Order: sequence, then C-alpha cells, then structure tokens
Amino acid sequence: MQSDQKLLLYEGKAKRIFKTDDPDRVLVEYKNDATAFNALKKSEFEGKGRLNCQISSILFELLESEGVPTHYLGIVDENLMMAQKVDVIPLEVVLRNIATGSLCRETPILSGTEISPALLDLYYKDDALQDPLLTNARLEVLNLISKERYNQIENLARKVNKILSNFLSKVDLILVDFKLEMGVNTNGNLVVADEISPDTCRIWDKRTKDLNDRILDKDRFRKDLGGIVQAYEEIFNRIKGISSNPRIYK
Amino acid sequence: MQSDQKLLLYEGKAKRIFKTDDPDRVLVEYKNDATAFNALKKSEFEGKGRLNCQISSILFELLESEGVPTHYLGIVDENLMMAQKVDVIPLEVVLRNIATGSLCRETPILSGTEISPALLDLYYKDDALQDPLLTNARLEVLNLISKERYNQIENLARKVNKILSNFLSKVDLILVDFKLEMGVNTNGNLVVADEISPDTCRIWDKRTKDLNDRILDKDRFRKDLGGIVQAYEEIFNRIKGISSNPRIYK
Repeated sequence: MQSDQKLLLYEGKAKRIFKTDDPDRVLVEYKNDATAFNALKKSEFEGKGRLNCQISSILFELLESEGVPTHYLGIVDENLMMAQKVDVIPLEVVLRNIATGSLCRETPILSGTEISPALLDLYYKDDALQDPLLTNARLEVLNLISKERYNQIENLARKVNKILSNFLSKVDLILVDFKLEMGVNTNGNLVVADEISPDTCRIWDKRTKDLNDRILDKDRFRKDLGGIVQAYEEIFNRIKGISSNPRIYK
Repeated sequence: MQSDQKLLLYEGKAKRIFKTDDPDRVLVEYKNDATAFNALKKSEFEGKGRLNCQISSILFELLESEGVPTHYLGIVDENLMMAQKVDVIPLEVVLRNIATGSLCRETPILSGTEISPALLDLYYKDDALQDPLLTNARLEVLNLISKERYNQIENLARKVNKILSNFLSKVDLILVDFKLEMGVNTNGNLVVADEISPDTCRIWDKRTKDLNDRILDKDRFRKDLGGIVQAYEEIFNRIKGISSNPRIYK
C-alpha cells in the first residue's frame, strides 16, 4: 500500500515539493529549517513551517483577490499547500522600499533610506554561483527571458509590492523589502510562485522604534536576535485579524 | 629650493597624480606596482610603469585622432604623462567582447563566449566596498549621474571599444575586455581619463592558441603565469610599429 507515499519532486532549503495525481498540481510542504547567507548558517525552528504556510496562504489569497495570478490553490494541512505546477523562472525578483541588508553592504546607500519608486534587484537563482545580482545587460546576454516577459515580471512585482505594502500597513507592519519567484503554469500564464512569508519578506513593526525589536522577519535569525517564531506568530496574528480564513483545498 | 619638489595630489594603486603650476593640468606617474583582487595580491615589476605609460600614450593619441576626447596632453618622461585635470566620475566602465574573469565567476556564461554587442558592466569605484557591480536601477538610486550623462558615457565607451578593437586587431591582438574611467575636465567636457594599458585591458594574442601563452595582460599576474613585463613589451612593440611616436609635452 503506497497510496500515502508522497513522491518528492524537489527539496529546497525551506520547502519540499511533492507530486500529486494531477499533473497540473503539486503539494508544497513548508519545513521548519532556516538557512541564511547561502546556507552557510542553518537551524530549525518548531512552528516556522506552519506559520509560513499560513501567512503565505493569506497573502496569496489577498493577491488573487486583487487580480494577481499566483500558483496558490488552497491549504491542505497546517504546513501543506496545494499549488499549480509551474516552470519556475530562475530569477529572484527583489523589491526594496527601504534600504537594508546586502544593498547597504554593496553600495554607499545608508540602511533605513526610503527608496521610491521601489528598487528592483534581480538575482540569478543558482546556489553554486551564490545567487548573483544581475544587471539588465547581463540578463540579456544570458538570454533567459524575453524583454516582454521582463516587463511583465516587473509590472507584476510592483503591483504585488503596492498590494502587500498597503495591506500590511493596516496592521502597523512595514514591508521593507521582499523576494518573489515567478513561474509559468501549465496554461502558459505567468504567476507568482514560491512563498510570501517572513522568510522572504523583511517586515518591520511600526509599533516600536527599537532597531532590533522592530524586526519581525528572518533577519532575527541572520542577526542572532532570537524570538523568530514569536515574531512570525505576531505577523500571523495581526494579518489573520483582517482577513478571512485561508480556503481549504479539497 | 623646492622647485623640483612635486606636490602629490593623489596616489592610487598603479599611479601617482601630481599638481603642476597650471591649475588645469596634472602630471601622471605610472608606477611599477601591480595589484589584483582589490589589492589582496601585490607585487612590483621593473619596466611596467614605463610600458603602461607608453602604451597609454599611443592609445590616447589614437582615440584623439578618431575624435574621442581624452585627458591626455603628452609624454613628459618615459613613465610620466601630462594630462588635463578632471573630476573623475566614480564609475568603472567595463566593456566585454569576450566573456572571462569575474563575469564567468558571477554568471553561468562560459569563458571564451563572444558577446556582441559588447556587454557594458558598471562598477562603483570604492575600494572599501570592493568596487561593486551596479545595476542601472541602483545607479539611479545612488543619483551619481544624470541619464543624459549615462548615455554619453555608454556611447563614448562603445566608440572607444570599436577604435581600440580595430587598431589592435591589425597587429593580431584581440581586445577581450577593458575598463575605462571618465571624468569632466575644467571646461566641463566629458573625457576618457585614467590609463589604457594591459593593466586595464585584457588582450589576447591571435598568433597562439595556447590558453595561457595568448594572455598578454594583467591576467598573467592574477594567474601567476609570469612574463608580465615581456607580455606588455610585446604589445608595445606591435602597436608602436603601426603608430607614430607619442608627442612630447613641452
């Protein structure tokens, strides 16, 4: 009897992707593992997988309700999500509303500087190359995507930024920056894929001015601040208060 | 009696800049020092300063003859050049005709891949930040130069690439890639500044297919291949055969 055996398609640093009976759908399992600095730093946090799955569900449903296509189909279990099968475009699309992190290590821009319109940074998804920053000119030489697709990606990312920033600000959360991954589903449509969680977003709490206390995202792990699960729980509690329960996938 | 005392304005890794009696002019001394990997690797090569000064003179005169404005005014001594005083724009403008070096460490593009039109990479000149790669979007956030100035820089760099590539190919030399610095002189004009030498250009010899022997530039130092001065001398001997003697500044 192997009916409960799930076939692993791919295991990443924070998620596992499983095959389903439907060729257009995959199961996404959110792990408790945390990695940073291209996996040089690793740990595990009980509850992180569940929280990221719940937060992602709420944010994917928000995006869908605002007309942004995503790979999300519904929640299956507390750390398990059903999603469309997509060909992931090997780019990390990062939008920055406030300068911090690598941007400030790589340029003289001071941490905390507001950037408007948001800065879009593209990184090539390749662990061996350590996800290098791509200029538009290098992207053209790599010939990964057409200019039309690039424009679609940029427009979608900026729309996501507006929707998420507005939503989070209602519960006193600041969307500092975030990473999106996008993919093409089996219908040929560009959709937001991967996850949208405090693992992939920097989120600051407006309710405190303390430079460490305000951090509610994976920077708590990168900077050894502790309280990572409590911070993710805080985000979850605030946003679930202004959204309906994520739909259950049947 | 201090009349022979030169007032040092700036000392870089490979050159010294001295004040002159004329506020619009500076003396550029080419040193024998060699550095690589942001000065983590250092050495000194007798004759390198003289050769880079002579090669730069020939190439600056070539550019001028083709209508490209440069800071070059003439040779003063074998390793000493008179130049316009310029405000250097803190950008390294790199044009790549063939992929090699950092581009291949930072992308999956294979070394030796021809790139046409040439790839333009901009780096922010800042030793402490290790001269980071800049995207156009980051350049805009830094607000260093206007879009108009950016277009001037790109056009000038591409023109220089054509002129140098054609000239070097006449003596069986391949211009693989090169770095330019530009500045604004006291008349407000954009000019090519710094040097144009095997320290700042990758140049391969068409007369050999051997992957190491063909290297006639600072990669001989970076890769510990030896024979750096002989390689620079080879370039100098070939190009002086098809150009007039550099003008003496009086």
